[in-house]
Amino acid sequence: MYVNPDIKKTVRVFPEEGRRAYLRYDMNENSEGLPLDFVEAVKREITPEFLATYPEPSAFTQKYADYMGMKPEQVLATNGSDMAIRYLFETFGEKGKDVVTVAPSFEMYWVNCNILGYHHVPVPYEPDMTMKVENILAAIGEDTRIVVLLNPNNPMGNVYTREEAEAVVQRARDVGALVIIDEAYHYFYEKSFLDLVKKYDNVAVLRTFSKLFSIAACRLGVVIGSEAIIRYTKNAKLTFDVNSIALLFGERLLEHPEIEKTLIAQEQEGKDYILSELKARGYEVRDCKGNYIFIKTRRDPHALAEELAQEKHVLVKTYGKGMLRDIMRVSVGSRAAMERFLEAFLPLDIAEEK
Amino acid sequence: MYVNPDIKKTVRVFPEEGRRAYLRYDMNENSEGLPLDFVEAVKREITPEFLATYPEPSAFTQKYADYMGMKPEQVLATNGSDMAIRYLFETFGEKGKDVVTVAPSFEMYWVNCNILGYHHVPVPYEPDMTMKVENILAAIGEDTRIVVLLNPNNPMGNVYTREEAEAVVQRARDVGALVIIDEAYHYFYEKSFLDLVKKYDNVAVLRTFSKLFSIAACRLGVVIGSEAIIRYTKNAKLTFDVNSIALLFGERLLEHPEIEKTLIAQEQEGKDYILSELKARGYEVRDCKGNYIFIKTRRDPHALAEELAQEKHVLVKTYGKGMLRDIMRVSVGSRAAMERFLEAFLPLDIAEEK
Repeated sequence: MYVNPDIKKTVRVFPEEGRRAYLRYDMNENSEGLPLDFVEAVKREITPEFLATYPEPSAFTQKYADYMGMKPEQVLATNGSDMAIRYLFETFGEKGKDVVTVAPSFEMYWVNCNILGYHHVPVPYEPDMTMKVENILAAIGEDTRIVVLLNPNNPMGNVYTREEAEAVVQRARDVGALVIIDEAYHYFYEKSFLDLVKKYDNVAVLRTFSKLFSIAACRLGVVIGSEAIIRYTKNAKLTFDVNSIALLFGERLLEHPEIEKTLIAQEQEGKDYILSELKARGYEVRDCKGNYIFIKTRRDPHALAEELAQEKHVLVKTYGKGMLRDIMRVSVGSRAAMERFLEAFLPLDIAEEK
Repeated sequence: MYVNPDIKKTVRVFPEEGRRAYLRYDMNENSEGLPLDFVEAVKREITPEFLATYPEPSAFTQKYADYMGMKPEQVLATNGSDMAIRYLFETFGEKGKDVVTVAPSFEMYWVNCNILGYHHVPVPYEPDMTMKVENILAAIGEDTRIVVLLNPNNPMGNVYTREEAEAVVQRARDVGALVIIDEAYHYFYEKSFLDLVKKYDNVAVLRTFSKLFSIAACRLGVVIGSEAIIRYTKNAKLTFDVNSIALLFGERLLEHPEIEKTLIAQEQEGKDYILSELKARGYEVRDCKGNYIFIKTRRDPHALAEELAQEKHVLVKTYGKGMLRDIMRVSVGSRAAMERFLEAFLPLDIAEEK
């Protein structure tokens, strides 16, 4: 039987399951979640009739556009950012042509290159974990169809200046390429590049409700772009994509901007707390500009991560290879969440006798 | 900027919104939904932490496999059948090659052909609304990559015999093509072709939780196939596809098979009732083998559908062209749902003076 050769040879690794039994600092969720009274109020709207009816995304899209100062025709809700990436790749990418990303970055960008038969052009970081934008610019050529910038980048946590982002967008425009600016982690970082959507016709900004907004279970992502970008992307979309529960939580969150403010303040407090506690103990840490930090652990981070999971039921992220193999990435939460983490982590990370 | 030419020229029509304010007999939902106490019990499991955590599909997949007498490696949960179709098309289809379907059938099969640049080969019905399987067999050739059979077919409501289905599968196998057997509407019809999955390695059966199972809002579809079919399809999938709420409702429904039995009995009672009421009034009706019927209306069905919507807040499905332009498709529900429909419909469908 015929099998698409690109898909046939794509190697996939799906996340471990059973994570709900652990304290989760590994996937940049807000593991404590939304305020209970808010969740209960939204749940009261979920009736048997509501569940039986196909989703209707327009009310959410309209509210999101208002919230962002855009037109509804510039907004598309998707089944998580995961689906936003797929749609944009399918619509603006071309088989055998280039997709430029920094490396390391969010893995689904290169995984989708493999699935769709696109050529991934990775732009490496400097040894000091900085990114030279001139290297991104140099990687963009006539064969480039898509350029991806995460701002801040995950996992590296660096950000781009307006001049840097705009230089990338202009260079991409010159060769007819789309720039995806993935702002999954923009909350702690006041500089969104959303305004570039208004200035350039080759920019799509991605947002997600899985991180700060704390509904990763629901799957809700958003694409913001020119009316033409959204119109073409809609041509490629499923009839029914985002489910009604995600749309409902999304709408109610937008109606309660005080929740967003509180979550940002809580996570900022937690981040400041853990960074200062670790620094006070002589740790080398990196304040990644998303809701996660890097810790240079005293012990081997991989063995330590395994012990944290087995002995303390605490999950963290480590990297098997590359420049991050000696660090541990820890997702940030409230101060209480960070206290729980340190309680598990500090007694285990004791420098071994050499 | 480069735009994929197939996607650029794909014309899409998305469903009208605002349907929740109407009595819905137009999209084959079970508009009354699941039992309230069941829904409330499931909702109690939806906590802030549950919402904050990424979905884990394995518990559902395992339960579904048990329910179906399959291995978990033969089951893939998807974001509605919509996404199942997309994954199977991407994995087993080929640009410029053929996809054979009967016509009319569920529109997303030919829409996905347009999006992906596949060549759609429609096999027309006979004027008496029967399908000659020899015509399907004749349409399958060396260029065929995918053959689609809905059993029962939507909207036509016909079913295939085992011999017919098996002949299609064998012919497809001879040319290296996958057969998608979409069983969205199998409930009233005891003959599932699920066992063909065990006998042939080129068969994928689709099921959905949007129709009888009454959670269209949640988006939950299932692909059942050989381990190889599921493995390749997973290569093409998003990391996170089905949301946790859909998986949770799916799991709990599988644990309560009495709900399925009750829903089937209720819809069968409603269907028997409306068919006998209409026949008693001299209507020509068709007992489609899914949860819907055809009514040959006395008045023009399009004008009548519009009046039903505007005056009675009742939605039904009509067809602008083709062999179904003179009929009205009405989704079946409980006897009470059918009584409400007839109350709105009968006084409006009065034969006009010629």
